[in-house]
Amino acid sequence: MEKFYGVIPPMITPFKENGDVDFDGFVSNIHKWNKDKLTGYLVNGSNSETAYLSEEEKLELVRLTVENAGNGRHIMAGTGLESARETIRFTNTCAKLGVGSVLVLTPCYYTNAMNSGAMIRFFTEVADHSDIPVLIYNVTKFTHVNIKADAISELSRHPNIVGMKDSNGDVPQLATFLRVADPSFQVMTGTFGAWYPALALGTTAIISALANCAPNEIAEVQELYDAGHLERSRDLYQRMFPVNSAVTGDFGISMLKYATTHLGYTGGYVRNPLGDSSPEEQAGLDKVLQKANIL
Amino acid sequence: MEKFYGVIPPMITPFKENGDVDFDGFVSNIHKWNKDKLTGYLVNGSNSETAYLSEEEKLELVRLTVENAGNGRHIMAGTGLESARETIRFTNTCAKLGVGSVLVLTPCYYTNAMNSGAMIRFFTEVADHSDIPVLIYNVTKFTHVNIKADAISELSRHPNIVGMKDSNGDVPQLATFLRVADPSFQVMTGTFGAWYPALALGTTAIISALANCAPNEIAEVQELYDAGHLERSRDLYQRMFPVNSAVTGDFGISMLKYATTHLGYTGGYVRNPLGDSSPEEQAGLDKVLQKANIL
Amino acid sequence: MEKFYGVIPPMITPFKENGDVDFDGFVSNIHKWNKDKLTGYLVNGSNSETAYLSEEEKLELVRLTVENAGNGRHIMAGTGLESARETIRFTNTCAKLGVGSVLVLTPCYYTNAMNSGAMIRFFTEVADHSDIPVLIYNVTKFTHVNIKADAISELSRHPNIVGMKDSNGDVPQLATFLRVADPSFQVMTGTFGAWYPALALGTTAIISALANCAPNEIAEVQELYDAGHLERSRDLYQRMFPVNSAVTGDFGISMLKYATTHLGYTGGYVRNPLGDSSPEEQAGLDKVLQKANIL
Amino acid sequence: MEKFYGVIPPMITPFKENGDVDFDGFVSNIHKWNKDKLTGYLVNGSNSETAYLSEEEKLELVRLTVENAGNGRHIMAGTGLESARETIRFTNTCAKLGVGSVLVLTPCYYTNAMNSGAMIRFFTEVADHSDIPVLIYNVTKFTHVNIKADAISELSRHPNIVGMKDSNGDVPQLATFLRVADPSFQVMTGTFGAWYPALALGTTAIISALANCAPNEIAEVQELYDAGHLERSRDLYQRMFPVNSAVTGDFGISMLKYATTHLGYTGGYVRNPLGDSSPEEQAGLDKVLQKANIL
Repeated sequence: MEKFYGVIPPMITPFKENGDVDFDGFVSNIHKWNKDKLTGYLVNGSNSETAYLSEEEKLELVRLTVENAGNGRHIMAGTGLESARETIRFTNTCAKLGVGSVLVLTPCYYTNAMNSGAMIRFFTEVADHSDIPVLIYNVTKFTHVNIKADAISELSRHPNIVGMKDSNGDVPQLATFLRVADPSFQVMTGTFGAWYPALALGTTAIISALANCAPNEIAEVQELYDAGHLERSRDLYQRMFPVNSAVTGDFGISMLKYATTHLGYTGGYVRNPLGDSSPEEQAGLDKVLQKANIL
Repeated sequence: MEKFYGVIPPMITPFKENGDVDFDGFVSNIHKWNKDKLTGYLVNGSNSETAYLSEEEKLELVRLTVENAGNGRHIMAGTGLESARETIRFTNTCAKLGVGSVLVLTPCYYTNAMNSGAMIRFFTEVADHSDIPVLIYNVTKFTHVNIKADAISELSRHPNIVGMKDSNGDVPQLATFLRVADPSFQVMTGTFGAWYPALALGTTAIISALANCAPNEIAEVQELYDAGHLERSRDLYQRMFPVNSAVTGDFGISMLKYATTHLGYTGGYVRNPLGDSSPEEQAGLDKVLQKANIL
Repeated sequence: MEKFYGVIPPMITPFKENGDVDFDGFVSNIHKWNKDKLTGYLVNGSNSETAYLSEEEKLELVRLTVENAGNGRHIMAGTGLESARETIRFTNTCAKLGVGSVLVLTPCYYTNAMNSGAMIRFFTEVADHSDIPVLIYNVTKFTHVNIKADAISELSRHPNIVGMKDSNGDVPQLATFLRVADPSFQVMTGTFGAWYPALALGTTAIISALANCAPNEIAEVQELYDAGHLERSRDLYQRMFPVNSAVTGDFGISMLKYATTHLGYTGGYVRNPLGDSSPEEQAGLDKVLQKANIL
Repeated sequence: MEKFYGVIPPMITPFKENGDVDFDGFVSNIHKWNKDKLTGYLVNGSNSETAYLSEEEKLELVRLTVENAGNGRHIMAGTGLESARETIRFTNTCAKLGVGSVLVLTPCYYTNAMNSGAMIRFFTEVADHSDIPVLIYNVTKFTHVNIKADAISELSRHPNIVGMKDSNGDVPQLATFLRVADPSFQVMTGTFGAWYPALALGTTAIISALANCAPNEIAEVQELYDAGHLERSRDLYQRMFPVNSAVTGDFGISMLKYATTHLGYTGGYVRNPLGDSSPEEQAGLDKVLQKANIL
């Protein structure tokens, strides 16, 4: 598999007020994103409120993504479940629907037991039995597990594990993963907050919540960097940084959905236990969007 | 619903070497526990590796528990999923199978958003739609969420929320929950490490991993306390304490299963990503069991 | 040295508005406390803002405590500094002034290096060279170090280490320390939040911030317990619990000083970087004091 | 004050086997460093075991630094103590000895009270009364306090607060500080692990433990970057990265001293509670140094 270049949105899942998935809104977002500077789509990632979906809903979202994604766009599906057995089953169900790769969350329930041995045991078994390439998803703020360099070093040499999304924004750790991993293994950042430094370190792709509402600005940071306009790239990164912080903070998803709606897509409602953003939070976000000059 | 008095084991799920659930072993454990000093059974708790089970497997375990539990024993099923919607659906499926109550884990995926507002929103909706009584399950070492006193105070007044299992071992917090909750609401400890102090504070029931392998000793701590033999109760608590630490430490479940087998039940294998205990760990546990004089 | 029985206040240090130590206020507090149900005094503890004092100020506070403490009251001085060398020097300076024992904070600056080896190395050297008995002070919320059972087990056998103050409120850990320590070693709780369970576990003394403003109520919890009035003891503990929470919360010391003033002692100002409590915080505390019925 | 450009070592303090400061060794290090590519010296930083020194020792180290530093090299002294009052006193004592600036640690003892209000209150008072420019020192792994962007934004506008050392290696946070601070305020990284990304973000100076033993390599990363040889700069950064990890890990200072000795300087012993490195740790470090090709 070739390495990714560019921006992949971890697509939000819009809900209706009654809590049903708004599949039409989801599809209309894809059609809009098809015109944006994007490389592919991640369906059923953290920003999709995947933890809140039934398996049937997840599969329908995968089907709709495969059906509606623009030509040549890569489709990645989040399929991580806590056990290797369940992850393999769900991964291969998604593979049959036509996705190109799967992004598998580090298991995390028994936090203290999730050491490098557990990571190697889990991802090796999943990759051994997955019909399509596997990427590792490391996001400590949700899982409270942080995969270590020794596990990445070993797993990066598995022929069916092709890369990872590291959403921690820990740039020295990103540098470490880049140093210890097999050259064939792709280390991607999973947060816009690390995008410019990650480009400087040599990464070439990003899967970021912000790509739901500001995909082109993220792509332009990379275009400018690769064209040698380092200062302009950095300035754009700094200009967009507060927007990213606002949509990925403590009440991230409701704010991300509000911003996404504000910028012309379909955000929709969140699912309980999440709550909708307050008028004060929305007014705060409006200011951030204005200051970033992206309205 | 009357308050519980006594000991409830969060039953382990034995697996075969090939990873299948060993349903026969599970049933044989229940038949043995039927002769122990137990008040009821928790099926699909944390110690059941529930996170690693398919929904079909979970339902089969519920059915077998209902079928095999001794006369008069209460059956509680763990049914917490991350969204209220999914939790309600699964709760009522279990209710139809004949369980007496459900133990619902605090949702935890978007950790920082899981404030008291989210807890109240989630448990209220679940309890509003649950066909059987709901208990709250707080276990911060796995969820990284710690429900707060204001949420317990409010939720304890919901007519369909009857109690909680607090597995944190934070005794001042337990005292706080006991103080702020509605008198009808039952606060139970979820760890033997807090059992003697919890009795002193007025709790009357425990759901503890240790009850898988040493149920009667846990019951005797309470019998002695309630008979006014405080010192003997405390001595037994202190004698069993290291056993509890050994089976609920970092590699808890594999060690718990080893001890359970050692003490005459069917422990079985764990599921990947968990790994089996090493000979060194097992030798260490043997010493702890000998020192506690329970072999 | 005999074991302590009863209540020891970690005395606050009142400051004047200009930041100078209010030595007169300090002495007047001792004279009032001399009439309360107290066993001794701790000078230069955490609640004394010791970290904010010059060495000269600390020594003057020790001198004044020795001079003014009531007959038969034990005087303990906090003397922990980060290195064994400095701690020994300061400990023996205080010893010459007539204090009866020293309470030595766990060193903590290089947090991750402060393992059991470091604890044993440090406290052994300090105790080897201290002219008076040494007690260990464990308070993780300030130090971010938590001394382990293996270190307590070993250090409790040193002839010049006579006990510890554990301020974590972690009752299962307290039970562990009581179990592994030499019988001659005294485990005291350092927070009222754990007082009733600690009594149940067999501890006989407490050093608690709350003793600055409500010493007699703390003593009465113990008197009731020891007289066999368990329920009345527990009720008083629960009644005073919210007061303790209010004066030891995030902005602890300014609130503790406000409450101390409110209850007839001299609280005084705090030192920068601490800030004085706000009118809203004070109004909140007034309500807590009223509800606890101790005004 | 002009902004710094280049590398400043936070100088280690060599101790003799009996625990005395090895002042001769300290001076001989300065004479060697005078020939290295360094911009200045930090005396009494975290790597100096400052927490373990008496005030007299600290002042002697300052005097010796002033006396022996090479021509034109800036001298910065660590002077942070927990209270503003003590910090001001010690800062101005050091100022009289001829240091050019002071690096002031965030106060941290009452962790939860150390919010932005406390930071602003503390640093404003210190800077108001300091005779020389003040820099803020943020190092969460030791202090467990992390200064926030709002505090940096405000403090960076104080005429006598000229910059900060951020040792967290949190590169998105570094980008934030660079964005919100007054342009006159200098944000420096305090760890080599963030050096290359920090250069990419526009910082121009570093104060790093590694500069004790590998100063020229750190300087060369910057020289290469500024000459436009981005890839060579990054390669050197990646080559030296494991050395930095080895000398700043959990047992950092004893390993840093071992490496410093190994590379021709005087490392010396550490002070209790720190322990000397084990033969195994030393053998591990030898391999890291060989692999980095700097022996």
